[in-house]
Amino acid sequence: MNTEDLKKILSDLKSGELGETEAATRIQNLSYEEIGYARVDHGRASRQGFPEVIFGQGKTAEQICGIFEKLVHRSPNVLITRTTPEVYGQIRNIYTDAEWHEPAKMIRVMRDTGDLGMGEVSVCTAGTSDIPVAEEAALTCEAMGNRVQRIWDAGVAGIHRILGERQRLQNSRVVIVAAGMEGALPSVVGGLVAVPVIALPTSIGYGASFNGLAALLGMLNSCASNVTVVNIDNGFGAGFVASLINRKS
Amino acid sequence: MNTEDLKKILSDLKSGELGETEAATRIQNLSYEEIGYARVDHGRASRQGFPEVIFGQGKTAEQICGIFEKLVHRSPNVLITRTTPEVYGQIRNIYTDAEWHEPAKMIRVMRDTGDLGMGEVSVCTAGTSDIPVAEEAALTCEAMGNRVQRIWDAGVAGIHRILGERQRLQNSRVVIVAAGMEGALPSVVGGLVAVPVIALPTSIGYGASFNGLAALLGMLNSCASNVTVVNIDNGFGAGFVASLINRKS
Amino acid sequence: MNTEDLKKILSDLKSGELGETEAATRIQNLSYEEIGYARVDHGRASRQGFPEVIFGQGKTAEQICGIFEKLVHRSPNVLITRTTPEVYGQIRNIYTDAEWHEPAKMIRVMRDTGDLGMGEVSVCTAGTSDIPVAEEAALTCEAMGNRVQRIWDAGVAGIHRILGERQRLQNSRVVIVAAGMEGALPSVVGGLVAVPVIALPTSIGYGASFNGLAALLGMLNSCASNVTVVNIDNGFGAGFVASLINRKS
Amino acid sequence: MNTEDLKKILSDLKSGELGETEAATRIQNLSYEEIGYARVDHGRASRQGFPEVIFGQGKTAEQICGIFEKLVHRSPNVLITRTTPEVYGQIRNIYTDAEWHEPAKMIRVMRDTGDLGMGEVSVCTAGTSDIPVAEEAALTCEAMGNRVQRIWDAGVAGIHRILGERQRLQNSRVVIVAAGMEGALPSVVGGLVAVPVIALPTSIGYGASFNGLAALLGMLNSCASNVTVVNIDNGFGAGFVASLINRKS
Amino acid sequence: MNTEDLKKILSDLKSGELGETEAATRIQNLSYEEIGYARVDHGRASRQGFPEVIFGQGKTAEQICGIFEKLVHRSPNVLITRTTPEVYGQIRNIYTDAEWHEPAKMIRVMRDTGDLGMGEVSVCTAGTSDIPVAEEAALTCEAMGNRVQRIWDAGVAGIHRILGERQRLQNSRVVIVAAGMEGALPSVVGGLVAVPVIALPTSIGYGASFNGLAALLGMLNSCASNVTVVNIDNGFGAGFVASLINRKS
Amino acid sequence: MNTEDLKKILSDLKSGELGETEAATRIQNLSYEEIGYARVDHGRASRQGFPEVIFGQGKTAEQICGIFEKLVHRSPNVLITRTTPEVYGQIRNIYTDAEWHEPAKMIRVMRDTGDLGMGEVSVCTAGTSDIPVAEEAALTCEAMGNRVQRIWDAGVAGIHRILGERQRLQNSRVVIVAAGMEGALPSVVGGLVAVPVIALPTSIGYGASFNGLAALLGMLNSCASNVTVVNIDNGFGAGFVASLINRKS
Amino acid sequence: MNTEDLKKILSDLKSGELGETEAATRIQNLSYEEIGYARVDHGRASRQGFPEVIFGQGKTAEQICGIFEKLVHRSPNVLITRTTPEVYGQIRNIYTDAEWHEPAKMIRVMRDTGDLGMGEVSVCTAGTSDIPVAEEAALTCEAMGNRVQRIWDAGVAGIHRILGERQRLQNSRVVIVAAGMEGALPSVVGGLVAVPVIALPTSIGYGASFNGLAALLGMLNSCASNVTVVNIDNGFGAGFVASLINRKS
Amino acid sequence: MNTEDLKKILSDLKSGELGETEAATRIQNLSYEEIGYARVDHGRASRQGFPEVIFGQGKTAEQICGIFEKLVHRSPNVLITRTTPEVYGQIRNIYTDAEWHEPAKMIRVMRDTGDLGMGEVSVCTAGTSDIPVAEEAALTCEAMGNRVQRIWDAGVAGIHRILGERQRLQNSRVVIVAAGMEGALPSVVGGLVAVPVIALPTSIGYGASFNGLAALLGMLNSCASNVTVVNIDNGFGAGFVASLINRKS
Repeated sequence: MNTEDLKKILSDLKSGELGETEAATRIQNLSYEEIGYARVDHGRASRQGFPEVIFGQGKTAEQICGIFEKLVHRSPNVLITRTTPEVYGQIRNIYTDAEWHEPAKMIRVMRDTGDLGMGEVSVCTAGTSDIPVAEEAALTCEAMGNRVQRIWDAGVAGIHRILGERQRLQNSRVVIVAAGMEGALPSVVGGLVAVPVIALPTSIGYGASFNGLAALLGMLNSCASNVTVVNIDNGFGAGFVASLINRKS
Repeated sequence: MNTEDLKKILSDLKSGELGETEAATRIQNLSYEEIGYARVDHGRASRQGFPEVIFGQGKTAEQICGIFEKLVHRSPNVLITRTTPEVYGQIRNIYTDAEWHEPAKMIRVMRDTGDLGMGEVSVCTAGTSDIPVAEEAALTCEAMGNRVQRIWDAGVAGIHRILGERQRLQNSRVVIVAAGMEGALPSVVGGLVAVPVIALPTSIGYGASFNGLAALLGMLNSCASNVTVVNIDNGFGAGFVASLINRKS
Repeated sequence: MNTEDLKKILSDLKSGELGETEAATRIQNLSYEEIGYARVDHGRASRQGFPEVIFGQGKTAEQICGIFEKLVHRSPNVLITRTTPEVYGQIRNIYTDAEWHEPAKMIRVMRDTGDLGMGEVSVCTAGTSDIPVAEEAALTCEAMGNRVQRIWDAGVAGIHRILGERQRLQNSRVVIVAAGMEGALPSVVGGLVAVPVIALPTSIGYGASFNGLAALLGMLNSCASNVTVVNIDNGFGAGFVASLINRKS
Repeated sequence: MNTEDLKKILSDLKSGELGETEAATRIQNLSYEEIGYARVDHGRASRQGFPEVIFGQGKTAEQICGIFEKLVHRSPNVLITRTTPEVYGQIRNIYTDAEWHEPAKMIRVMRDTGDLGMGEVSVCTAGTSDIPVAEEAALTCEAMGNRVQRIWDAGVAGIHRILGERQRLQNSRVVIVAAGMEGALPSVVGGLVAVPVIALPTSIGYGASFNGLAALLGMLNSCASNVTVVNIDNGFGAGFVASLINRKS
Repeated sequence: MNTEDLKKILSDLKSGELGETEAATRIQNLSYEEIGYARVDHGRASRQGFPEVIFGQGKTAEQICGIFEKLVHRSPNVLITRTTPEVYGQIRNIYTDAEWHEPAKMIRVMRDTGDLGMGEVSVCTAGTSDIPVAEEAALTCEAMGNRVQRIWDAGVAGIHRILGERQRLQNSRVVIVAAGMEGALPSVVGGLVAVPVIALPTSIGYGASFNGLAALLGMLNSCASNVTVVNIDNGFGAGFVASLINRKS
Repeated sequence: MNTEDLKKILSDLKSGELGETEAATRIQNLSYEEIGYARVDHGRASRQGFPEVIFGQGKTAEQICGIFEKLVHRSPNVLITRTTPEVYGQIRNIYTDAEWHEPAKMIRVMRDTGDLGMGEVSVCTAGTSDIPVAEEAALTCEAMGNRVQRIWDAGVAGIHRILGERQRLQNSRVVIVAAGMEGALPSVVGGLVAVPVIALPTSIGYGASFNGLAALLGMLNSCASNVTVVNIDNGFGAGFVASLINRKS
Repeated sequence: MNTEDLKKILSDLKSGELGETEAATRIQNLSYEEIGYARVDHGRASRQGFPEVIFGQGKTAEQICGIFEKLVHRSPNVLITRTTPEVYGQIRNIYTDAEWHEPAKMIRVMRDTGDLGMGEVSVCTAGTSDIPVAEEAALTCEAMGNRVQRIWDAGVAGIHRILGERQRLQNSRVVIVAAGMEGALPSVVGGLVAVPVIALPTSIGYGASFNGLAALLGMLNSCASNVTVVNIDNGFGAGFVASLINRKS
Repeated sequence: MNTEDLKKILSDLKSGELGETEAATRIQNLSYEEIGYARVDHGRASRQGFPEVIFGQGKTAEQICGIFEKLVHRSPNVLITRTTPEVYGQIRNIYTDAEWHEPAKMIRVMRDTGDLGMGEVSVCTAGTSDIPVAEEAALTCEAMGNRVQRIWDAGVAGIHRILGERQRLQNSRVVIVAAGMEGALPSVVGGLVAVPVIALPTSIGYGASFNGLAALLGMLNSCASNVTVVNIDNGFGAGFVASLINRKS
């Protein structure tokens, strides 16, 4: 937050130019830093319950590091998604204890490990190949203060595999289900539990999977009423929403 | 089959102009009647194991009746698919015992009820709304000499419904599974049985079901290896192939 | 639930043929009634927190009434979605106090009005034409025990309209946002609140809206991390998930 | 299968905690090994008539080898599809006699060569470029106990090429037809034979073939009633279903 | 052609303001009549070898009659495509001998029946339902001075039907092939003849035919090199191009 | 604008609770009337240079009239697009001099006919069937204070028709070009003039026009650099933007 | 052609086993060589007027060379399309005078340069980037005995460029028009000439060109009646059909 | 412009063969240079207000340099879009002061920096990753004589970021808004300003963004009436149209 901007608002408040409410709003809203190529949004934590995450794809290493430097001084936990080992190398020069998660291609700073959730978040996959996307979701949930249980490779073609996990699923406060190909697992899980299910389509498949489109359409048409959907391969988004659902008020 | 054509072939055979094999082929292949707007294919029964079926959609009542008259004198069982009660009225003037099947919109002549199958064909639906398409499949199977068991409304969002039918499914020689929306049921059934599963997508759904496209794509991407797929709402085709699979050699 | 099935399970339990846990599961799972064209799922309430809803589209009036009769004796609140005034006429013969909601094309029986939620659910629309779909969501939320506040016609092209509702939005436990055309409103709302946002695309629009596809894609690609998506025009599903999110554990 | 799990079930059976039927089901269903990233499904052989196949694409070499090790001790024949020469190098360290099939990019262990089929399976291609996909189907059929005859490069633009094979086709119990571009060959073959035809679209083509979409759509709309379809380039699936159709009961 | 415009050009020519070539071009190009809602293009006959045809769809009866009146005084043969019996009623008030072609929904004035072609045009259909579109093509060819032979219902699933017509096809100067569903017939015909084949996709089909898209894509990907394609259901266009190909220079 | 809201702002200003700038913004922004199903946006005129237009499609006659009543007292010119003669009947009861434009299906109140433009707006169509959409654009331009010249039926297949209008086109300040089918006209016009061209795709066509998609894609890919595009059939939008471009500052 | 096959047919003819006509057909049809991965079709020349062309894409260098060796001994002119300089290196070892055409990525053997056409073929492009595809068309035409005139970079955004070539276009017997992006040029050319126009969409463009889809759709919807279309980037096909159209009978 | 062509026209004028008007048109239109692979269009400046720009993609370095040499001698400002540092190296050999703009991948010659605009052009982006495309637009605007203000990273999920720029936006004569993902920013900006907004979809995103399709569709369906759209990633086009809108007449 720019000091001069802040001073101006406060002096206006003092002089009666601004009312209290308005001054508060302005302070809250204007709380981003402009660093040329980005407006780093420090207000998001108070508005949304979590600091801004750096979406790595399509940004240069320089840009990522620049934004990271601004964020790491303010927020205990920071995430960089869809990034590379090369960027990780540079990030470690800034903050040594940053973690690298190979399957998820994610960098994570995790200084606050407190539990903020009402219950547990379950993260399931239909197949082994869906694990990287599901890991992005699971790591996000952990960084946002949730306990997570992972259930890998439990697709519908061997239905006993997911049925064997019924107990754990039914004890969760929210379930994330990652699946590629025909994307049928969320419907089955949806029918087993009485909590929200976040369907996470992955681009796993070939031919008429059209890079995840088949799974996405399947999930949007789920006959289970408790299913909502996020974008293909959007593990971060799934984890983010699950965390908000699970959050103690 | 035109008599003159036949005579010509036979006289050529006699005169040595044609060999035996060739004469046989010609007789078999040329066995259709040209009636202006259609070539009625009487050879199909010997080539494919069943007489030609009349696809009603896009034909005038007059054309349907014209083709039906040719077929009904040669084949014990005849099917007219995708037709209307109006056409049925006219067909009954030609053959009184023709049956009308309202949900499937099908006219059926069923004079031969012999059992030609190795085992039973199961026909399942995910929901109540899928029944009309599934009935088209079931009626076709019966007309082609199969015993059929119907399992309606057993979609994956209440997985115990299909699991409760496991025994019957596993005793079948082939299973047809009709589903709209996300089309997930064939994958689940595929994982339960050791026989071929014919996935039959229906146009039931709305929004991102895109008139059955979501179900179709889901089924094509099934993670169960024993699943093949027919066109959206193609109950007849599903029943036809199931009958060929089940046929005693 | 079929009495003979139940007795069989209980006698097996008694004889030691079945264990307690297993008997419980069987009783819970087998609790649907088969009525020919449908398996009425009385177990869903205990599994999912709400009785089965009748999806009216694609079912005959006879089928709807048949299922309704089974449900209305067991569940205080019942919903029939995507139906017609004609069906409503027949339903009133079964249960006089059923409500008809014209814009949402929904029949509702609402005998239990208790509040089961942690907070309020807000339901917004971008335009006037999105109201019918949003009403389906709002009516569902109410039937599932939630307090609902409606915010109509607050699309992004007049951004002050949604900003003027910021306070109410930020006080909600979950927000549903219905929008057609470019579907931009959920992203804006997502950025204003710290709770889950359920994006509800509608088929409102023309030309390149492709019956809601543009809105759907927009919402799936939302740059706000707290947004999940349901099918086009799926007001019921949006309301159902919102209710689960808001439910007191 | 985990010994402790098994013991537990058996002791429960003995103590009367579990009935016989239930114990049987549990044993059958729980027969998978969890190895972290995968649940190796040893029960599939009894349920589906063939051991689990390793779908190589999207798995690390380490994961493939880990699963392979579990499978190779139990099943005489094992397949790894969509894999690489590099993985083959590592597999040979585990099992020396594994075969590498270059065009199909498949690793095969083939210790049981018994004939389980009622008749022969024919595998055809429209063009030379379709051979790799067709080979995947043919190799799968052989591994599942079928005699296979290969008919390459017999596309419809030189119709005499497929007509010249009529005899062989008509003697088969089931026919697989691989084609890219317009995908017309299955319809022609379908009209020549009285057995099921499995249409196998390939991604061969360019421009408006849209990576096999044109062929896929063509096959789904086949005017021959005995045609079903699998996913684009899914040679394995085509071979698997053909094997089930051909299997002696 | 407006007289004043013409006079102006001629006087400019006379005065030396315009050269001969330019004057000719201007006269040829400006030869359309503006009648408010349309520019009736009398120059097209000299530029393209045939007078303008009235595309009926999307025009009011009044507009069609207005344009027809202008054309019928200049051109011996006139076509109105995609129109209705109602419009035909009004057209007959203008010109009594106009013909109505029910299947093709076409009005035709046919006063010049001279033969302008090098050879014959064959028009084939795959099925009975494709006849209306094929008739539009055939009627157009006749109106443009060609001899036409019609070959109906000769689809690839009964390949002997088209093979039986090989002789007639090979004697044609150009072949039009109309097909819906998978649209495979043009490839087969293309392989049988040494002349151009115009593939004419029709919207006949259902489900994954997507209103002719499957047929269109199939034809665009034809493995026969002598195939070109026109728009779905564009019988007129197919007939027009065939006529130009067949025209004696 | 609600009086109490306004008073509150003014009293806050007076008391020093609000500054001048903020008060101004609030007054400007809050200037909509909430009438239940809609927020009538009176501020739009000052923000956008024109009063809100009523998009008729998807609104009930009652809703349209309700909004119209609010607007007609404040704004000299009012438009209702995509509406019906029935609504027109009701609107005339409110305001007698409202105009009905049949081809455009538009109601217009036109009390201010002053010229606000820098130059003229040209509106062209490729064919006769594109006129209704183009009229919507032209009527909008006039209502927003522009002189309009209409150029109908000048498609590229008779290129001299548009070349003949080159002079008029080059004298315009902005050109709107409506075209369906292949949508080629905007590229040609774009190459002829040195001003912005607004390409207006229409849904005119059939088959592979996919309801205007072909025209839309063509226009988006125009090789003329001065072309921008609006939605299919969005005549109003094209007219609106053209008016803003032409407006004297 | 296999000698034994031929002898068998001839001896059957002699013995009266076969008639003359049949023997002729068999000889003509069976005239392909099977070389394992391909059936080299020597009969195509007599059936289609040109020897088989090798479509290089998707074939190994070994396969291409194997087929080439069979063809080069029989046919004066041979084409290999979509190939590489590496393959060219190997082809030159077989036939030294083979030509390499870099932009078209084509190998050509051109020993017969006789003129077989009624007139000239014009090949146009809209832009410079369309030249490689157009060259494939032009080289094919030449190899099939046509005189070709090339008109490059004459797109519609500078309409005078194509108008300047009007004379040459109008003197051609057939015109090929290659264009990417919006693909508008064929419609303009179609309106200028009285001969068939073959529209050749290219994949040139970006964004909403969707790799040539926009151009393809535009051309299929051409408002010029004399336009037919081939697949995206199918220069060979365009050249082939143009040659058949131009061929002296 | 070719001298001989010019002389011919002038002599024709003199001799009275040509009139004044026609001569003028011919001179203006024929003013391109043919250099084999391209027709360099020197007339475009007078027709369109700016010299031809070289679209680098799909052209060889040789072709780009060849065209550049022709243009750089006539026009003070020249642009080469979608090119590479390698081409830049060669261009500097021709003209040393050419600029290289890395993010936009653009080469620019900028010798005339005069201001030709009525006001300012604002260029906004929703995110950091949209900057390269937006820079292409901004650099184009500058080269065409406009003052530009850049507003980066102001997407709708943090709505205060764009609201904070309201003043600057409202002072612009035209606004370009670049956004990927859901593409919602143009609608919000459109509602804030009274000038034309050019929506510039970018291919930024993943999964269901389908390379910019989601953003494109969103923008085409904008509920703000002052929005028009250009192709995905077409920064140049957006800048070009904005310059024409802003140009002083």
